[in-house]
Amino acid sequence: MKISTRALTLPVSSIRILMPYALEAGKKGRTIYRLNIGEPDLSPPQEVIDALHNLNVTNVPYADSQGDPEFISALVEYYKKIGFGMVKTENILITQGSSEGLTYCMWAVANPGDEIIVFEPYFVNYSLYSHIGGVKIKAVSTEINNDFHLPNKAEIIKAITPKTRAILYTNPNNPTGTVYTKQEVEMLIEIAEEYNLYLIADEVYRELNFTDRKHVSILDYFERIKDRLILSDSLSKRYCLCGARLGCLVVFNPELFQSLYKLTTSRLSAGFIEQKICSVLGKISPKYSVKLTKEFKKRRDICEQILGKMYGVTIASPEGAFYIMAKLPIKNAMDFATWLLTDFSDKNETVLITPASGFYLTKGRGEDEIRIAYVLEEKKLRRALELIQTGLEQYKKTRSPI
Amino acid sequence: MKISTRALTLPVSSIRILMPYALEAGKKGRTIYRLNIGEPDLSPPQEVIDALHNLNVTNVPYADSQGDPEFISALVEYYKKIGFGMVKTENILITQGSSEGLTYCMWAVANPGDEIIVFEPYFVNYSLYSHIGGVKIKAVSTEINNDFHLPNKAEIIKAITPKTRAILYTNPNNPTGTVYTKQEVEMLIEIAEEYNLYLIADEVYRELNFTDRKHVSILDYFERIKDRLILSDSLSKRYCLCGARLGCLVVFNPELFQSLYKLTTSRLSAGFIEQKICSVLGKISPKYSVKLTKEFKKRRDICEQILGKMYGVTIASPEGAFYIMAKLPIKNAMDFATWLLTDFSDKNETVLITPASGFYLTKGRGEDEIRIAYVLEEKKLRRALELIQTGLEQYKKTRSPI
Repeated sequence: MKISTRALTLPVSSIRILMPYALEAGKKGRTIYRLNIGEPDLSPPQEVIDALHNLNVTNVPYADSQGDPEFISALVEYYKKIGFGMVKTENILITQGSSEGLTYCMWAVANPGDEIIVFEPYFVNYSLYSHIGGVKIKAVSTEINNDFHLPNKAEIIKAITPKTRAILYTNPNNPTGTVYTKQEVEMLIEIAEEYNLYLIADEVYRELNFTDRKHVSILDYFERIKDRLILSDSLSKRYCLCGARLGCLVVFNPELFQSLYKLTTSRLSAGFIEQKICSVLGKISPKYSVKLTKEFKKRRDICEQILGKMYGVTIASPEGAFYIMAKLPIKNAMDFATWLLTDFSDKNETVLITPASGFYLTKGRGEDEIRIAYVLEEKKLRRALELIQTGLEQYKKTRSPI
Repeated sequence: MKISTRALTLPVSSIRILMPYALEAGKKGRTIYRLNIGEPDLSPPQEVIDALHNLNVTNVPYADSQGDPEFISALVEYYKKIGFGMVKTENILITQGSSEGLTYCMWAVANPGDEIIVFEPYFVNYSLYSHIGGVKIKAVSTEINNDFHLPNKAEIIKAITPKTRAILYTNPNNPTGTVYTKQEVEMLIEIAEEYNLYLIADEVYRELNFTDRKHVSILDYFERIKDRLILSDSLSKRYCLCGARLGCLVVFNPELFQSLYKLTTSRLSAGFIEQKICSVLGKISPKYSVKLTKEFKKRRDICEQILGKMYGVTIASPEGAFYIMAKLPIKNAMDFATWLLTDFSDKNETVLITPASGFYLTKGRGEDEIRIAYVLEEKKLRRALELIQTGLEQYKKTRSPI
């Protein structure tokens, strides 16, 4: 029986590629510190948990394809609170996480063979969304020595072809933690204007900003680029609600909105129960985000301090989100990450990290890099980093004479 | 700003196309009896409601991409109970409703330009799933006079080309309510074998069978066609859980399973809370389905009785699910359905029905037909059917001299 080419050639997410080895190690009774998936270990806002416990439903109907009106109102309220009162009901499409939102975006702005520019290293699933729709990702490189900030305008423009339809950027960034400056965001806007491109901003880590600079949102430029801006958002990270599968697209171009809306009708609706529960989001105190950001900043500091001292390891300083990229003094981080699960243990413990090559499109780039998601509390995080260090020392001796 | 051709040309579901008119009529204070969407008005099993109220979670993490292990176990238990003990954990992929499952199926078995055979009238969203992936739907006609049972083998084979990859059928059928006989299912199996095609069975209405015949599942032929069979299933209809967005694919071909699994990783996971709640499904008494089927059979009888007496109306006798197709003595059912919302009211009440042309691929077919989803309790259903009759009489006088 034939399988389609698109399915056969669909890449496997490098974040999940090591799961079978982790499963095997787990079966051997080994404790695994998981630093691979961007899933906070913290609880959602108490308001959401309470709403779940108090939810009184006797029916579980489809929600509207656009989204549950109450939940959309809660999002309108959220955007208003953070200074974006221009976001109205008619600009919001509820999506099953930003995964679905970005997938629909790519399908709506690009035909098969068209191109979307991203900045490598980039969130690996962008490749999956685009692959499914036959859209080509073109990657402009950013560098660890520059803390993965954007290159200059000329470098970015080089990647534009007649088939380019959009620039997609993540701010704060996954996997690098980079928070783009006002100048960087404005440069992207200029390019989008000059080359008539959509500008898609993935801002799911908006509040997780450790810098003194205010986060520069694409919505700050609403008046200037309302027809070409697409904001992709999600509750997953901001409210520790990864499993709720709720996000949204914010779109002001009515024709684009209509096309995206049609795409949402194809899957009828997002989850009814989760939307009902999350309708309390408008009521959540900004303190929740402040506390969350403080916790991740603390963990960032721990990572920087410990990784920064490891012999031969180079890191970029993350300014937000909850990831840190590290360049290791080895040749093949995929082999190292696998080895940590198959051959290494210290007091019957080991660690699961993400090899970074999957975050790069340019062949050969990132092969000695890893992404760490600091989604464990301090004590566990320290132990996990210690395991990386012990592992590195053993690995270099036994496996990779460099 | 350009929109992609695939988004611009994506059809609008004929089930939802009249929603703006319904909204307008609602604003005028008009009561609308909704017979358009296949969403039961009944409550989910009490076990599910209880599980929701008793759910004790403090974290909402991603579920596994394949699905929550507990929920998968509940489905294994369900299949075992109905006689399909061959369905194991490694054969089940949890999907966000059968919408997602069928979309992934089409992408995995067909490349852009490849063809999948369906039987018209067919569930309109099949066109949306296939359109998104560039897959071509080819429709073999079934006829109201034959209660929409399948044509003979030669008719079906005529539709097969070198690009055909699969046959997709719905049993019991939406929109016709037809329950296929053993002979019909076996004929499809023969064709799939002879032409080396996948056979995709959408059995989301499995239990809603009003005939004395046992429902013939594709799983009854597991041994014979395990590499080419795909079962698409859902909790939406069987357990009145449309808004839970949970379904599954059952696949025994390991290579196909792996490809479908990769597709599920692209959206990370289905909803965590709903999967936790629905993990009780293995415990639900078969009495729930018996009661549900009895209720829908009663409504089917009411529809047959009332519609059957209407002057000039032809119906097919539905054998399952909760839909009935009716051929009206007018030229344009889309115009009539719209008119019911914009121009008609009786005691300030009107009715929302689905024009059936969207269920047909062959141009011109179904233009005088409607689909009624009998998803209202008896009293409301009787009133809704009365409104159709009154509407028809008025419409014929004022609008469509035939």
